[in-house]
Amino acid sequence: MSAESVNMEGVAGRLAGLGIVLPKPTPPLASYVPVQCHGDWVQVSGQLPMVEGRLAHAGRLGHDLSVEDGVAAARACATMVLAQLAAVGPLESFRLIRVGGFVAATPEFTAHPEVINGASDLFLEVLGENGRHARAAVGVSSLPRGAAVEVEVLAVRVVAAS
Amino acid sequence: MSAESVNMEGVAGRLAGLGIVLPKPTPPLASYVPVQCHGDWVQVSGQLPMVEGRLAHAGRLGHDLSVEDGVAAARACATMVLAQLAAVGPLESFRLIRVGGFVAATPEFTAHPEVINGASDLFLEVLGENGRHARAAVGVSSLPRGAAVEVEVLAVRVVAAS
Amino acid sequence: MSAESVNMEGVAGRLAGLGIVLPKPTPPLASYVPVQCHGDWVQVSGQLPMVEGRLAHAGRLGHDLSVEDGVAAARACATMVLAQLAAVGPLESFRLIRVGGFVAATPEFTAHPEVINGASDLFLEVLGENGRHARAAVGVSSLPRGAAVEVEVLAVRVVAAS
Repeated sequence: MSAESVNMEGVAGRLAGLGIVLPKPTPPLASYVPVQCHGDWVQVSGQLPMVEGRLAHAGRLGHDLSVEDGVAAARACATMVLAQLAAVGPLESFRLIRVGGFVAATPEFTAHPEVINGASDLFLEVLGENGRHARAAVGVSSLPRGAAVEVEVLAVRVVAAS
Repeated sequence: MSAESVNMEGVAGRLAGLGIVLPKPTPPLASYVPVQCHGDWVQVSGQLPMVEGRLAHAGRLGHDLSVEDGVAAARACATMVLAQLAAVGPLESFRLIRVGGFVAATPEFTAHPEVINGASDLFLEVLGENGRHARAAVGVSSLPRGAAVEVEVLAVRVVAAS
Repeated sequence: MSAESVNMEGVAGRLAGLGIVLPKPTPPLASYVPVQCHGDWVQVSGQLPMVEGRLAHAGRLGHDLSVEDGVAAARACATMVLAQLAAVGPLESFRLIRVGGFVAATPEFTAHPEVINGASDLFLEVLGENGRHARAAVGVSSLPRGAAVEVEVLAVRVVAAS
């Protein structure tokens, strides 16, 4: 087995092992594109926790959602980020640079890092070392359609190990 | 008519057709620069909805402002982004990569995409294909000076078609 | 004295003059890295106002914190950004591009620029011309661990003047 096929198996195998079937990427809600590229840079628009074409996680952390709900929402956002990247090229060809994590949260909420780990951990599980990233996680007053979490990603295209 | 003059007419003509006279770019409120460049990358600082040197759109979506008010505020922010870019080089020379749209909004507000379309649509109307962009739109608790919307842009300089 | 040693003295001397001893960089609270690089680009994760390993500035602007408290918090965040950069390379080798400043703030708060100046001014004081940056400053509902301010930075590595 060549290094390349091992590598290809890597992401596909990890997705399968996690029981994740990448969804059809959701079209933008408005006047923008889901992914914009320049040179080897790839900016993915803020993704909401859509599952099967509908918003699966609405609400606010510290109000009507638990941290576990938030983790699931962040994971759903990250799944959609992966789906958007996969529409541009093989997932093996991306290395993440920055994750922006927005948590709809009350003024008293403090566990934003744990919530956004739902996204960060999925990136690491699926992309391995290429999934490591810098991050900013903050609490916002509200998000489009009442979503609980929104995640955007800046990545680069790299030559896949072969 | 050369391709270049057509192209120049393009943006100038579209601005005129929209009845937009680019304002004098507003100086920063504080210790930063309005635009920072590196290589072909251009980062525009967060712009507020200033019109004729004063904040034209204050308030919060879902509280004292309608979605239409928010759209107008986002459009004013985007006009100021264009003014900042025009101070760096001809508008034909920029391609947008990412728009960050911050909407001062209540916890119950859900129409952030419609509000930030006020900025996105203007970029498309004025810059054409080069105005397409990835985007993150979120609701924040408050913005500088009580502004309703703030818009920042990451762009690149491209060789204008000629 | 060579230009290089003058330059080295520059940042080291300014830090000393400001009475700043760069802290040990704080490890991330979660599943991400403090700094991610690609080419000459350097993205620093959102930094909280940690002093001696603990959160030194909790609360919200407009609620239980004054603007002066916020300025001190932003300055502590910026100090941690510098510590993270110094762990990657000499501070002389960085030029800032973008500062993202998140202020935990009430809906009525309006002085976000003054608060985030606590970070921007420190960058200028320590890095000189290389500390100039574009910026977005916004008010958020809450931040990790109840922090008052969070600051992230996008920078580039430049060849130090010699």
